[in-house]
This record gives sequence, structure tokens and C-alpha cells, in this order.
Amino acid sequence: MTHAQSGVGGEVRGGALSPSAVLPGLDEEQLRLLRRVGREWGRVSAPEAWRRALPLDSDLGRFPPPAEIRPVGWGRLVSVSPLGGQPSTLSEAVGELPPGRLGRFGYHVRRVVLGAALKSTAIAQERMRKLVALPVLSADALSSVAYGPEAMLAVLVLGGAAGLTYSVPIAATIAFLMLAVGVSYRQTIRAYPHGGGSYIVAGDNLGRVPGLIAAAGLMTDYILTVAVSIASGVAAITSAVPSLATDAVPIGVGVIALLLAGNLRGIRQAGALFAAPTYAFIIAVFALVAVGLVDAAGRGFRPTAAPHLNATESVGVLLVMRAFASGATAMTGIEAISNAVPAFKPVEWRNARTTLTWMVGLLIVLFAGTIAIVHLDGVVPSTQETVLSQLAHRSFGSGPLYVLTQAATAAVLLLAANTAYNDFPRVLFLLARDRHAPQIFLRLGDRLAFSNGIILLSLAAALVYVAFSGMTASLIPLYAVGVFLAFTLSQAGMVVHWWRLRDRHWRKSLFFNATGALLSAVVFLTAGLTKFTEGAWVAVLAVGLFLVVTMRIRHHYETVSNALRLHRHAIELPTPTLPGPDATQPPATTPQLPEAPPDARTEEEDEETPEEIRHLSVVPIATMDLAGMRALAYAASLHQPVLAVHVSPEEDEAERFREYWTLWGDHLPLEVVVSPYRAIVAPLVHYIEALHAKRPDLTLTVILPEIVTMRRRYRLLHSRIAPRLRHALRPLPKIVITTVPFHV
Amino acid sequence: MTHAQSGVGGEVRGGALSPSAVLPGLDEEQLRLLRRVGREWGRVSAPEAWRRALPLDSDLGRFPPPAEIRPVGWGRLVSVSPLGGQPSTLSEAVGELPPGRLGRFGYHVRRVVLGAALKSTAIAQERMRKLVALPVLSADALSSVAYGPEAMLAVLVLGGAAGLTYSVPIAATIAFLMLAVGVSYRQTIRAYPHGGGSYIVAGDNLGRVPGLIAAAGLMTDYILTVAVSIASGVAAITSAVPSLATDAVPIGVGVIALLLAGNLRGIRQAGALFAAPTYAFIIAVFALVAVGLVDAAGRGFRPTAAPHLNATESVGVLLVMRAFASGATAMTGIEAISNAVPAFKPVEWRNARTTLTWMVGLLIVLFAGTIAIVHLDGVVPSTQETVLSQLAHRSFGSGPLYVLTQAATAAVLLLAANTAYNDFPRVLFLLARDRHAPQIFLRLGDRLAFSNGIILLSLAAALVYVAFSGMTASLIPLYAVGVFLAFTLSQAGMVVHWWRLRDRHWRKSLFFNATGALLSAVVFLTAGLTKFTEGAWVAVLAVGLFLVVTMRIRHHYETVSNALRLHRHAIELPTPTLPGPDATQPPATTPQLPEAPPDARTEEEDEETPEEIRHLSVVPIATMDLAGMRALAYAASLHQPVLAVHVSPEEDEAERFREYWTLWGDHLPLEVVVSPYRAIVAPLVHYIEALHAKRPDLTLTVILPEIVTMRRRYRLLHSRIAPRLRHALRPLPKIVITTVPFHV
Repeated sequence: MTHAQSGVGGEVRGGALSPSAVLPGLDEEQLRLLRRVGREWGRVSAPEAWRRALPLDSDLGRFPPPAEIRPVGWGRLVSVSPLGGQPSTLSEAVGELPPGRLGRFGYHVRRVVLGAALKSTAIAQERMRKLVALPVLSADALSSVAYGPEAMLAVLVLGGAAGLTYSVPIAATIAFLMLAVGVSYRQTIRAYPHGGGSYIVAGDNLGRVPGLIAAAGLMTDYILTVAVSIASGVAAITSAVPSLATDAVPIGVGVIALLLAGNLRGIRQAGALFAAPTYAFIIAVFALVAVGLVDAAGRGFRPTAAPHLNATESVGVLLVMRAFASGATAMTGIEAISNAVPAFKPVEWRNARTTLTWMVGLLIVLFAGTIAIVHLDGVVPSTQETVLSQLAHRSFGSGPLYVLTQAATAAVLLLAANTAYNDFPRVLFLLARDRHAPQIFLRLGDRLAFSNGIILLSLAAALVYVAFSGMTASLIPLYAVGVFLAFTLSQAGMVVHWWRLRDRHWRKSLFFNATGALLSAVVFLTAGLTKFTEGAWVAVLAVGLFLVVTMRIRHHYETVSNALRLHRHAIELPTPTLPGPDATQPPATTPQLPEAPPDARTEEEDEETPEEIRHLSVVPIATMDLAGMRALAYAASLHQPVLAVHVSPEEDEAERFREYWTLWGDHLPLEVVVSPYRAIVAPLVHYIEALHAKRPDLTLTVILPEIVTMRRRYRLLHSRIAPRLRHALRPLPKIVITTVPFHV
Repeated sequence: MTHAQSGVGGEVRGGALSPSAVLPGLDEEQLRLLRRVGREWGRVSAPEAWRRALPLDSDLGRFPPPAEIRPVGWGRLVSVSPLGGQPSTLSEAVGELPPGRLGRFGYHVRRVVLGAALKSTAIAQERMRKLVALPVLSADALSSVAYGPEAMLAVLVLGGAAGLTYSVPIAATIAFLMLAVGVSYRQTIRAYPHGGGSYIVAGDNLGRVPGLIAAAGLMTDYILTVAVSIASGVAAITSAVPSLATDAVPIGVGVIALLLAGNLRGIRQAGALFAAPTYAFIIAVFALVAVGLVDAAGRGFRPTAAPHLNATESVGVLLVMRAFASGATAMTGIEAISNAVPAFKPVEWRNARTTLTWMVGLLIVLFAGTIAIVHLDGVVPSTQETVLSQLAHRSFGSGPLYVLTQAATAAVLLLAANTAYNDFPRVLFLLARDRHAPQIFLRLGDRLAFSNGIILLSLAAALVYVAFSGMTASLIPLYAVGVFLAFTLSQAGMVVHWWRLRDRHWRKSLFFNATGALLSAVVFLTAGLTKFTEGAWVAVLAVGLFLVVTMRIRHHYETVSNALRLHRHAIELPTPTLPGPDATQPPATTPQLPEAPPDARTEEEDEETPEEIRHLSVVPIATMDLAGMRALAYAASLHQPVLAVHVSPEEDEAERFREYWTLWGDHLPLEVVVSPYRAIVAPLVHYIEALHAKRPDLTLTVILPEIVTMRRRYRLLHSRIAPRLRHALRPLPKIVITTVPFHV
């Protein structure tokens, strides 16, 4: 099957993403060539007669009814139920239930966990109003407040009390950065009302390689969003219930598994589901900040003395820059709204901009408020308890309000992780559409989710999470690099966009985007350089590898696509020994192979019309048992020349086989190859190679008898010669491999 | 290929083991049926005409020259060199060098480690005289002195000084046991001059199940011989060089790897190689005992006081019995000579008996001497140093004599482990010959060694060795069970043998064997019961599992063998619509499929003659690219009815495909299946199943276009639909699967 080439064999029609458009369109030249190939075929085929010869009732196409066919099993477990032929059993047999206890169990588990399969037509677009869109699209950004300030403080605390004094100026810088980037993304929303992800914007305006680099940044960003959000969410829980602290890693992996199952099922961005925890989180942090400020006002805004701290590093530019890069992770997710403009109610771009403004405002307030009361209360990061939990304890005690705050924090972080599950597969889909990623990421699962991308994200996130023992602090250095790389390229792309477009407000937009790009680039470089040894090298390496791999994938797909295109050369070569209409004459039962024409094309696999193909069947036969006899009978029944080949370890055995052959009647030509070193596969392969070298004009069909045991555990008891031979013969040209099964 | 059925399809001629006889013989009925099938075929085939039609020069059979064909690669790595056709490149192309850098590297490593391939005719039997046979065949038994006494003492020391007083009486009992079992095996040698292994003797005389139980005992015995001998040998080395003690496990695994490589290369039992360490070991232990006795004589044979010992268990019957069972491992390997009678110079059995007598004499002397001076010197087992090393220190100091003793001990233990490498694959071969083990154990490697058995032994021994951290003491409880189980069954088999035979000396022989059997049974039960929780349960479980698995394997092979036999039913059924001589008439280019006959046999795969096969080719096609067109052309060129099937996710796409098809000229019948849930494999499988259900008389050939990428790393980029479809269709009856490759 060449469904592999979905989207490879031609151009996808139009620019719209129809995820179910798997059949590539053919361009004008392809269509012309197709017509031409058809004319060649016309000499040999008589479709009406063929059709009459077929055992096709008009209802066979509906047998089983197409509407009832469902994909089943975990990808590879295709349901194969024995079909009795009685219509009554059909409803069971069309694929609902795989055979075997394990298969049925897996099927039921799958249906319970994932739900029934969905038709392609079930894709629907939910349009969101602003008050719904805000919690849905800002969970990622706002939840960053849970780990961003803490990450910043964790660096500053290395400089002791002197270090902590820098928290307020750094936070002010970050708040300004949020504002600048927010304004910058407002420009993107205006320019890309259909959704302007970093990959699209950078690719459109800067070219393919920057686009891919942006995509690489995005992908690491999404993987780390899952890992960091879950690490931080688990920390929120273990702060409240310290006894769970030792189980942080299994809890996190369990949460990733839940997200995996939920997203394979195809969670839609259900507004109500998202609204509650996000608003709860916003209110909780607001309350916490308010209570803290009231307390501080009571003592005249004098900061509480922080506990005595041992400075392990001197406070220098490097420390401050590292703290800045860590704190900047508080703005991850800020780009979400600009990706999702079409999800808004009309006028989409205007509503999206307003929502973005609200979100940035909230983000700045929450971030600045948190830092302010951290400063006022003299809170210091600890490995046992998150900063937010410490603040909540101070503001709310340990009662229900505290528990609610922690629960809302964990919930909003879970939602943030979930947004990556929407975005990561979409970027992979776009990459696959542009042939930069394997085509399996184009496939919609039976629940209309991009299952393969979802699985890949889960695996990668789980790997990263486990490798860093679920510690937020260790993950942060990797995080900032990818995020700000994507930000920088996206906004730099916008600068080019405005420069080219020069519409009414282009100067203003260009200025805002240039500011955003510049500031993002500063953060990217700061993070990449100051945290290189702390883990940023992993992210840099990942981006580099990603670039190499995606470029090679594209190159490979283009090679394949060119090789598969109907092309002049394959079709217009003169067919050397074509005897004209005679070719349609029936072949004799014992056909004479024409001598190889002097100008026979040799290694090229060029025949595209049936009459050009000259056959020779080769049957490797080990013993005269039913499996072997069936293969011989099948070969002979094709009415093409047949040659049987037997491999024997010694001359005596060979003689004995020849005796049996003669006794049987010597009905087919037999070659016996003596293999004194007892190998079987190698001599057969070499014999077939030699045959091909001698007569490259022939298409060799190797007909393999193969014992098929119905129980998997018995497979080991039988020779693997058929699969080994199939594997060894695969790379050889003009060799077709036919397996004649014998069921035991 | 059905080479799988080597030895399965019929009876192996005669009882002699010709390891290269892979072609099963056919019995009278099979031959008669074969002739009959041949007559059926006579109606359709004209061998001379077929033969003339083939492109076979007389020299093709020698192209590549059969004598030059060599098996290459690690089993699966079959050499596939591109064959240019020029004779000059042939010498390289016949399989010497696999393509690819990795393949070539692996090939060279293999040839350096294992040496060049050997022809089957290189098998030669070395005949040994007694003075050579003694060290070769007794290394296993005599080396047991290195761990047997220590194992006994290690149990007794749990009872403190009081426990150790039992060492002499227990040793006397074991010495008597050695004598009795030795005399018993003398009877076996007389009765089985061709070699009487436990599996053969027990199987011959007691029946299949006891034979298999004996084989199970033997196999665990051999695995533990390797593990225990290496553990003990490593202990001999670490006693001399204590700094190596922490590396005992990697050293032992390294030694197993060396044994593996050496035996894959096919080490012959080179007399000289074995003679030196065995004799050195015998002399060293003799000298050690002699010096110890002289010392003791100097103090009037008064035992030296042992160091103060804390008894952790009370001295009771159980402790004494456990010590007895552990000490009895000193006689493992005593059966070796009776297995290898044919290896002696004539008169074989007489020389074998004499050698056995010598060996048992030496064994008793070494064992008793060791225990005696342990008793006299008051040596106590220690975890840091072996008992033999302590004795050697006392007798020889720490000079070269001590080092030589330890080296000889380690060397003889290595040889003992190596004997298991000869015996284990031989038992597996016998089991495989009797269809109780997978047929891969029948295969001689290209170095004339039973490679698969050797690999299995190495894996099992390494697993056991690592699982027990290379500690002799932990392995001993597992060891005794298997050994004495095999001993018991073998000697019980001899009792039955003499009872049936009743030749001249039968009463005496029966008495000796019965004594041996009885005593062995006592040891077996003692070991099994007293050490059950210490590890013997593992051995008991292994024996039980082995029995179940080998019986099921035999059952499966018999089922397959019966299914594969040419049988009356398949051949003599009336062929329903056989039109007589008309069948040899050439089929039309657009053949009409005959209507299904009313009495068509349905699910049975019975056709054995070509004329009974009615074809329909089904081509699943995804796009109209070159790969798809080639598959269509191949299908059409077979001049049998063809049906193309396209799976489309939605009606629009389906329509588009139909347009292309029409444009091409609609040369073949096309069915489009709409799969609204986007699955591809399941709808195809169900369509083909439905087709089969409708017309079970047809043989369906599913012709799959498949993209073959030459580089393995690009495989992931392409759809796995062809292999998935092949996998899903495998279990269906009367469906032949053809793969038409398209190379990229």
C-alpha cells in the first residue's frame, strides 16, 4: 500500500487544512501522463470482460456495510473475525470485536477509556466569547505565576539577603517585558486572523529554516510546559500534603498518563471545564496578595526580615541575569491567544486582541503582586514548600482557604499542561503537511484526535519529567530557551511582515514587534548563555537535532515523491519486443519465454503496462509435503514458467530429494543447490540474484510456502526461513515475493 | 519454506544420528500418495516444454559455484551483495562479504572469533586412549572436590563445633555412595556401548515421561555445572587475589562469554589441552593431602582445635541430611564416562570401564583426603577464602606451590564447565530429534557446533550465575536436585533393562544398578526436601515446566506433521468441475471465472493440483503513483481476474479517486470502500473476508504495492500498511499475499 504517500504524491489542494484529505491531488502534467499510461494499457485490457468475470454482486461493496466498518484495536490489532457468511453474524464481524481473549479485553478497555469511534464529519468548531476564551487560553500563561517568581527567587537566594534585594527591579523588568511582548502579539493577531503560530509566522516571513527553528523551539516549549506544569502542580499538592513528597515522580507520570488518555479520547476545549479552575486561581492569588498587602500596610510596608541566609555565590551581573532568565518563564504561554484567533466569536481578531490585553494585564498584576508580597513578607524559596504555598499559609492560615488555593493552583497547572496537548500535535501536523515530519502525524485517530502527536508528547514529557526527577528548578533552564527562541523568531517574522506590507499602521506595528523581538532575543541569549551548563545545552542540542532531522525528512519525502511520480521516462521508452496486438493473445499453457532482447533494460524497474512484464516463478521447496505441494500448485496454476529450487546440505540428500521428485513425476523443472556449509537462505538468495543477473528482463516471482500457526507461541518452533528470505530479497530489483500460507 | 519441518514430515531413517540429515524420509504410504498426486498433475503440466521455456543455461546451477556458497552473518544477517554479473566480482559476491559497514564489521569479527566455516564432511571422531580419556572425561567429576567438601562443611558449621564432628561419618557415607554409583555406571557402560546418557537409558527402559524428566534433570545439571564450576573457579582465584573479590560477577560472566565464543568456534575435546590442568589438579590435591597428613602425623593425628564457633542451629537429623545432600555434589560428573563410550579406543566398553574405575578411585581418594585433613587441621569454611585455598596455604605457605594449586583448581573447574558445553547441546539435539524441542537445535552451525544449544546454555548459565551473584553456596541447593534426579532415573532404567534382558550377569548388574538407583533416590529426596526453601524449589519447578513444555512441543509438531502429510482426503476427493483435457486449454486473456460449483468445498485448503485453483487478484491501491501502477500492471500481467480496491475516508475523496481512475481509462474493475472512521487496514481486511465468504472456491491473491527504502532509518517515514495488512490476512484461509516492491 502506498497510503504512506498521503500528501506526498502531489500538491495538497488549496491552503485550507482538511485533516481528512489523504488523497494527494495530481497536477496537470500528472493527469496528462496518467491518460497516456491508460492508452498504453488499452492495448492489453478489456475492462468490461474483466468485470463480467468477477464474482461481484452489486451488494458486495456493502458487505460489510461501509458505514459499519470501524477501526479497531491499538493500531496494529486489526480485528479479523471469522466471517461465517450468515448475515446474522455480520454485525459482530464487521470489526467490532477482535478475536482472542486478549484482543477483546484490549478492545473493551479502549472503548471504555476512549469512547466509541467518531466520524470525520463530527469535527465541529466551537466559537468562544471573551469571558470563556480568557480562562481557556490564559491557563498556560497565568499558571506560570506558580513557578516563574519562585524560579527567579531560587537563583537570587544563592546570593543571600543581598541577592534577594534584586527581586523587585528584576520583576519590574519582566513586567515590562510582558507588556512589550503582549503589545507585540497584538500586532500578530491583526496580521494573522487565521491563527499565527510561531512556525507559520517565522516560516512565512523569514523562510523555511527559521520556521523550522521556531517549530523546534515550540516543540521543546510544549514538552517542557507539560513537564514543568506537572512538576509545579505536584509541588503545589505536596506542599499541602508533605507525606506525598516522596511519590512526586510516580504521581507526575500518572498525571501524564491521564492527560494522554483524556486527549486520545479527544477532550474538546470545553469552556466550562476550564473556566472554573482558572478563575478560582486568579481569585485565590488576588486574595492572597490583597491579604498580604493589608498585613504589610498594618506595619507600614516595612519588609519582614528574611531568615538568615548563607550566600553561596557573590551577587554579580551573572547571578542577576540568571535570575532574570528564570523569572521570565512566568510569561510562557503568552502566545496562546495569537494562535487561536479563529476560535473567537466574530469579529475574531478584535475579540482576540481584547482578550489578550486582559490576560496580559492579569498576568502583570498577579506576577507583580506575588513578587511584592514575597518581598514584604521576607519569604524564601524552600525545597519542601512552594513560595505560593508559603504565601497562602501566611495569608490564609492552614484552613479551607489555603487548601482551595493549592487545589486551584494544581488544577490550573493541569489545564496549562493540557493546552500543550492541543498545540503540540497541531505543530506536528503542520510540519507533516509540509513534509518535515513523518506522515503518521497527519493521521486523525478514530476519536478525531491526532493520536500519534499526543502519544509522542506524552512520551517526551514523561521522559523529561522522570529524567529530572520532577523537579521544577532543574527543568526551568531548559524551558526558557525554547520559549524565547520561538518568541524571537515569531516577532522577527512580524517585523519583516510589516516591512513588506506597509499598510496603514505599519510603522507602529513594526516598532512594537521589533521591540518584542529584541527583548525576547535578549532573554533567549541570556537564558542560553548563563544557563548553558545547567541544562540549556540540552534544549540547544534538541533544536539543532530537530533542524537536521526535519530537513532530512523533507529531503527523503521529496526523493520518494519524485520517484513515485508518473514520469515521461517510464512511459515513453519504446517497448522493445512488443509484438503489437499479438500480445493480447492468450499465453500458451506452457509459454515460451522470449529470448532477452539485446537492448533489454536491465536494473530499471520501469514496466508500467502489463504486456511488458515477463514472468518467471521460483519456488524454494524443502520437502514434498502439503505446504510445498500447495506452493508448487499455486505457481503452476499461474500458467507462467516455474522453476523449483531445493537447497540440500550434501549430495546424498540432494539425490534423495531428486528421487522423490522423479517419483512425483518431475512435472516442473528442478534445480538442486548443494550448500556444504548448511546455510539455506544465503544460497537461495544468491541463486535468485544470479538468475536476475542472467535475465534482468524477467520479473521473478519468488513463491514461498509458509507454515502459519494460529497460536503465536508456536511460531518459535518453526523455521523463520520464509521471513528471512523475504527480508533478504526485499532490496533486490524486479523480485516479487508471494507467500502461500499453510494453516496449522 | 518448510525447512521448518526437518525431521517432522516423516521418519528419520535408521537410528544413527546424522546431524546433517535434514530431509525427512517418506514412508511407503507417502510415496504411494506422492506418485498419485503426480498422476493428477500429469494432466496439466508438460515438464519438457516448461523446461525449454526457462532461461536456464547448464552452468546456472554453478553460478555462484555451490562449493563457494557460505553461510554468513549472525543467523539473520544474510549476505546480499549486488551481483554485477561479471564473473570477476563473483568471488566477492557469493556471500563472503555482507553489504554495509556494520555488516562487514560483524562479518570480520565473526570470522576472527569463530574462524572460517567448516564443511559437513569435516566431522571427525577422535578416539582416545585411557590416559587421555581420564583427564578429558573426569575433569567434571574430580573438580567437584573443589566445592563438594566445602558445601558440606558450610552446612555443618551452622551447628558449631558439634556440627563439624559429623564431617567424617558423612564423608564416609558419600564415599560409599560414589563407589556404589560408580559400580552402577559400570553396568551401564556394558549395556550401552554406544553411549548411555540418562535421557536415552531412562527413555528406552522407563518410557517417554521418565526420559523427559531425566533430560530435565540433566539440563538443569549442565546449566548449574557451568554456573557452579565458574563460581568455584572464580572463588579459587579471589582466594589467591582477594582484591578481585568485588568483581566476581563480571569476571564469571566474562568467562562464560569466552566459553561461548570458544564453543561456537567448535573446540574439540583436545586431549592435550585437558590433560595438563586435570593432572596438575590431581597432583596438587594429592600433595596437599600428603603434606597435611605428614604434619598431622607429627602431632600424632590429633585434630587441631577449630576456632571458636557460634552454633546458629542445633545439630539434628535435618542439619546432617542437608550437609549430606550438599556434600553429595562432590560426585557430580561421575556419569560422564558412560555417555562417551564410543570415544574410547577399541574395545570401547572395556576401556571405558577401566577408566571409570580409575576415576572413581581418584575421586574417593581426593574427596576423603580433603575431608580428612580439613578435620585434622580444624579448617572452617570462610566467605573470603575457599577451604581448598586454606588447606593449600597451610601445606604450601603462600609461595609458587600455593599459586600453582589455585591455578590448577581454577583451570580444572573451567574445563568442567566446558564439558557441559559438549553435553547440553547434545541432549537438546536428541530432544529435538524426538520432536520434544524446537527444531533449531538440530541445526549444526557453520563451525559444525550446535550453536543454538551453546547459546542457550550460555544465556541460562549467565542468568543463574548473575541471579545468585556468583556465590557457590547459594547455587549448591539447586544443583543436587537435578543431578540426582537424572542419576536415579538412569539407574532405575538400567534395573528394568537387566530385568528384561536377563543375560549372563543380569542378577549382579541388576543388584548394582538397583543399589545405585536407591541411593541416588535417597540423595535426590534428601536434597529436594531439606533444601526446598533454599532454592531446590527452583530446580523442581524448572523440571516440571520443562516436562510440560516439551510434551506440548511434541504434540504441536505431531499436529503439524499430520497436517502436512500427503493424505488421502486431500487427493482423492472428486474434483467437482474438472472439465478433463479442456483444462489444459490456454486461459483467455480475460478469463471467465466459472460459477462457484454447488458442492464447492469452502473453508478447506485442499487443492493439490494446479487445475483446481481458481484465481482472483485483489490490488489495494491508495494513489495512482508508480508504485500503485506497477502493482496493477503486475496483477494484470498474470492474466487472471483482477479487482482494485481503494479505501477512502469520505465520499468526496472517493469521487476524486474515481475521476483519476476514469481518466486513466478504467482498465480494471474498481471498488471504492468509504471508511468514515479513517481506518484503512480494517476495511480492506473485511472486504477481502467478505469476498472469501462469498466465493470460498476462489484463491484470492492480494497484491500489495510496497515502498522499500534502502536505508533502514527511513522506514519509519512510510506507512506500515503493507506489513499490517500482511499480518492481518495471514490467518485467513486461501489468501495468498504478494508484495510488489518499489525501491526508493
